[in-house]
Amino acid sequence: MHKIAFDVMGSDKGLIPAINAGLHFLQNHHDVEIFFVGNQKAIENHLATVPNCPKNYQIIDTPEVIGMDGGIMDIRRKPDSSLVKALELVKNKSVDGMLTGGSSAAFIAGAHFILGEFEGVGKPGFMPTWPTIVENHTVLFLDAGANTDNSAQDLYNFAKMATIYAQTVLHQERPRVSLLNIGEEKSKGKDVHREAYELLKADQKLNFQGNIEAREMISGSTDIIVTDGFSGNIALKAMEGALKNLMKVIKTTLTKSLIRKIPALFLKKAFKEVGTKFDYKNYAGAILLGVNGVVFKSHGSSDEQAFGSTLRMTYEAIQGDVLAKIKTKMEVES
Amino acid sequence: MHKIAFDVMGSDKGLIPAINAGLHFLQNHHDVEIFFVGNQKAIENHLATVPNCPKNYQIIDTPEVIGMDGGIMDIRRKPDSSLVKALELVKNKSVDGMLTGGSSAAFIAGAHFILGEFEGVGKPGFMPTWPTIVENHTVLFLDAGANTDNSAQDLYNFAKMATIYAQTVLHQERPRVSLLNIGEEKSKGKDVHREAYELLKADQKLNFQGNIEAREMISGSTDIIVTDGFSGNIALKAMEGALKNLMKVIKTTLTKSLIRKIPALFLKKAFKEVGTKFDYKNYAGAILLGVNGVVFKSHGSSDEQAFGSTLRMTYEAIQGDVLAKIKTKMEVES
Repeated sequence: MHKIAFDVMGSDKGLIPAINAGLHFLQNHHDVEIFFVGNQKAIENHLATVPNCPKNYQIIDTPEVIGMDGGIMDIRRKPDSSLVKALELVKNKSVDGMLTGGSSAAFIAGAHFILGEFEGVGKPGFMPTWPTIVENHTVLFLDAGANTDNSAQDLYNFAKMATIYAQTVLHQERPRVSLLNIGEEKSKGKDVHREAYELLKADQKLNFQGNIEAREMISGSTDIIVTDGFSGNIALKAMEGALKNLMKVIKTTLTKSLIRKIPALFLKKAFKEVGTKFDYKNYAGAILLGVNGVVFKSHGSSDEQAFGSTLRMTYEAIQGDVLAKIKTKMEVES
Repeated sequence: MHKIAFDVMGSDKGLIPAINAGLHFLQNHHDVEIFFVGNQKAIENHLATVPNCPKNYQIIDTPEVIGMDGGIMDIRRKPDSSLVKALELVKNKSVDGMLTGGSSAAFIAGAHFILGEFEGVGKPGFMPTWPTIVENHTVLFLDAGANTDNSAQDLYNFAKMATIYAQTVLHQERPRVSLLNIGEEKSKGKDVHREAYELLKADQKLNFQGNIEAREMISGSTDIIVTDGFSGNIALKAMEGALKNLMKVIKTTLTKSLIRKIPALFLKKAFKEVGTKFDYKNYAGAILLGVNGVVFKSHGSSDEQAFGSTLRMTYEAIQGDVLAKIKTKMEVES
């Protein structure tokens, strides 16, 4: 039985989408027990309205909530919050992993203080899984913003951790690793990039492909992209914004006149296909890689579908025992 | 008469698209004289094939070319290259501005060595003009990659220079300035961002709007985005790649079956509208802001349309006398 703590508080849309995602997941996964962490009364009130409610859950009552604007200090200030409790369940091994839709800053700080980092890993990194234009292919991207600054050694560690993740969870035998940079030549970028390039290249166990430019992020030409947290966050959000805004422009342009609306109607399914492919809701989760626990952050505005996707990722990481594999490798080599 | 030096060598597609763009521009602008800089024989050979060729051009024969992979050292190594000659024409005021589709690295180095920076400007920045989803609205973005690192003072200088550019060339009375960062709160980012935030905020002459996240880059919510060259390059290319790849996916999805191809055919014009709006060819040019001369770089893979758009930008910058205005302001305040 895999046990997952689910902090259902603190995200934008309230606890109902989170609980619904959990119940839906339980219906399809009989090897999972979920610990809903949050306001017991509110959780029970909602559960009472659900017909044929699955039973393999527990409720961990927590009186406090860290809101979306919560910061590092809230981890100390609110020891009875759902986020802190969920992380503690991971710490004391009551569960195998956790997820939350709450504040990223508080989540990162909490994971750091409560769980601690692996030996041999300087800084953990946020790693989302992104769709690419290649059918059934995704790309792992880290750090997406757990840090504002990273050393060359951090980037090298990211590559090693992500490689094991890709092998274990995505069943890629020899995942290609690329370094995000402003040009393909090895001389490009800042000192940190040139140093990281050498570290990555020297490790024969990594399938290092060299530098990659940001315009290739979703072209499917690589499996893992490593970068510092500042650039990573900028790159991901630039891409997210571009995709969202382009879809918006297309919608406006195609419905400007009746003569367009009619053929557009026939293409509704096709547009839905494209929309689904690049919908963040299907890729809402990011693991914080490098701390002692399987801990996932779901997008702050996650709905039931988004939480469902993050729950699936949490489950897959637990099932693959990815953490133990990474930990062993990192500690042996450090 | 506005005089423009056009380095027609060194770009990906050869000199014909460059020359054609120049001739087309001359046909529509009788107040312009173009100095085609490059291999005279090759230029003349092409001109001989053009019917009703406009006459208001000169050819500056240069025996050397700096290729797309050219670097900083080539400026010294190839003093008789078209790029160096075009920059020298600006330097000795034989022309009012120049453009090139050649190597960015050589162009930046050449502009630096030959023209020098303004007093009061630490580092010049590359500034492209980007479309947004708002009708007839563009956003100025710098530095897009002239530097790999920038100080808070650099970012502040960028904001001041771009504000005058927006006022002069885009006729925006009080252009909104935003700082690219990983979150909206003023505490976000690295030291350089927090310092830049304070500098920008303290200057009452700037219409500073605070931090902006990369997902808002083309949403039209601001007029000028300042950032360091590394993040700026990553952000722009991430956006460029996302737009290009999404259009590709849409095309594939819409032409998968005959039943889709037919309604898609009716929407061809609509798609073209969207495609044109976000086509880099209409925004291929970037000014290097902060050096003593109106100098534009066009995308390395520029075709006639792209060169035409960069030529138009060069013309507008010269016509608005934007450089003198920026120079005066920067030197007075430094």
